[in-house]
Amino acid sequence: MSLLVVGTVAFDAIETPFGKTDKIVGGAASYISLAASYYTRDIHLVSVVGDDFPQDFLNILTDQGVDLAGLQIKKGEKSFFWAGRYHNDLNTRDTLDTQLNVLENFDPIVPESAREVDFLMLGNLVPAIQQKVISQMTKRPKLIVMDTMNFWMDIAMDDLKKTISMVDVLTINDSEARQLSGEYSLVKAAQKVLAMGPKVLIIKKGEHGALLFNKDEVFFAPALPLEEVFDPTGAGDSFAGGFIGYLAQTKDISFENMKRAIIYASAMASFTVEKFGTERLIGLSQQNIDDRLQEFIDLVQFDISFA
Amino acid sequence: MSLLVVGTVAFDAIETPFGKTDKIVGGAASYISLAASYYTRDIHLVSVVGDDFPQDFLNILTDQGVDLAGLQIKKGEKSFFWAGRYHNDLNTRDTLDTQLNVLENFDPIVPESAREVDFLMLGNLVPAIQQKVISQMTKRPKLIVMDTMNFWMDIAMDDLKKTISMVDVLTINDSEARQLSGEYSLVKAAQKVLAMGPKVLIIKKGEHGALLFNKDEVFFAPALPLEEVFDPTGAGDSFAGGFIGYLAQTKDISFENMKRAIIYASAMASFTVEKFGTERLIGLSQQNIDDRLQEFIDLVQFDISFA
Repeated sequence: MSLLVVGTVAFDAIETPFGKTDKIVGGAASYISLAASYYTRDIHLVSVVGDDFPQDFLNILTDQGVDLAGLQIKKGEKSFFWAGRYHNDLNTRDTLDTQLNVLENFDPIVPESAREVDFLMLGNLVPAIQQKVISQMTKRPKLIVMDTMNFWMDIAMDDLKKTISMVDVLTINDSEARQLSGEYSLVKAAQKVLAMGPKVLIIKKGEHGALLFNKDEVFFAPALPLEEVFDPTGAGDSFAGGFIGYLAQTKDISFENMKRAIIYASAMASFTVEKFGTERLIGLSQQNIDDRLQEFIDLVQFDISFA
Repeated sequence: MSLLVVGTVAFDAIETPFGKTDKIVGGAASYISLAASYYTRDIHLVSVVGDDFPQDFLNILTDQGVDLAGLQIKKGEKSFFWAGRYHNDLNTRDTLDTQLNVLENFDPIVPESAREVDFLMLGNLVPAIQQKVISQMTKRPKLIVMDTMNFWMDIAMDDLKKTISMVDVLTINDSEARQLSGEYSLVKAAQKVLAMGPKVLIIKKGEHGALLFNKDEVFFAPALPLEEVFDPTGAGDSFAGGFIGYLAQTKDISFENMKRAIIYASAMASFTVEKFGTERLIGLSQQNIDDRLQEFIDLVQFDISFA
């Protein structure tokens, strides 16, 4: 089913304990689109770049079935740029540089062809801009999934809460869930966040996996224990892309199917962290993905039954 | 099958964000024995207390099938006492007081009746004392499981490594695995620790669950997301008791059965943290345990298959 992805397409410069990169392609919507494209093909992208952005990467997106009609390319302007350095534990990072560039005046325009999609993925962005996208839909999508971050909780909480109230699924990490709810227990935090509007909350815990909550149920997807997490950038976005991509493929938004979806999502995140940037998400084969899913099955499936 | 449990039986005074206790019963072997007793009954305890220790608690152990022939009760002496305060995240704690008392000259004596047990659980203790217990066994147990902690890595690493080389399964937490191996990646840490002798390593990650490794495989058991972790004291010991208790019950030490065992282990740990001390581990019904196991099944079981 059709999927609209909104978010940044950008440059990153990344330092990890294992090395550093020059400017490489990044941005939430880049990861989301690539990850989703392994599960579904009718994808529309709404974003903005400068004319410094490599056509090669855009060609890769097109090859993966991503329609770029909603991608604004601003002549004479530069793409969004973020530089960061990860600490040794890879769970914390310092921002070294942020250049908003084209993002400063980003006015998202959803093309006619994407205004009636069934699935809408709002990547992390200014909450008011996420709202602006929702308001352009001529038909309410079957499912709206929204990612966000602590930054907006610090500077735009009212706007953020309004956007949250308009979506079906919210994805945030554990510290963000605690900040948003004021509760330390993630179980309590989840119930408070669900009371803000979403029917489903996903709490991402990085190397510790992810929790899926609705009002009555909870499900847990582990992260794959890896020899090295090479670069965590984009893991959460790849997770979101895998999640909504799988739901769009299967056309089933039940909680049972969302359980499967966060396993498929975790598989995508596990690929992303194996190399710098989007590198590992390019050229995956069906066998690669099936093998990875099998690793998740082997990791947590056990056989206990009651007589 | 018969199980020998060695470790402390003691007093704790605990402060958590939710309250504080006076002197209450604690000690690794108390938790291990209670947790194991829900899965198997032929349990022998080797430990030491002073004559200040409450007979009531010893009666509870006896009622649960624990043979106290190896429990030394030192006249005119006091039981081991530990006081600690947990921080708000419950993952870190400060020790406020430690009184070794009877533990200072503890010389474990395994009674005749327990020298040919099939399962031996060495709770956290001075590594040299753990060795002393192994050396008293007249028949090599089918399975020796050992728990330890960072304290011994700091002050008795050589002794510790020698004891580790004598056991089949080692249980430590994630920071201890990193300290013992010098590797940050838990996958790499596990392989280094397994090279020290044990066939199986369990890395406990508290609220983030537990990983089970052998040379070729890895399995993950989640922790149950709880509204409140009331008091984490004894969670790791209850886990160890549930693990070896289930193995003793099923008489099967295959990796497949150890997967089930760490789910049964996690169930015991999840009870322990719901109340102060050993309180929640007393008087559990089979229905309580089955319901809890079902929660673990619901938490992680998903249905993905390949055509």
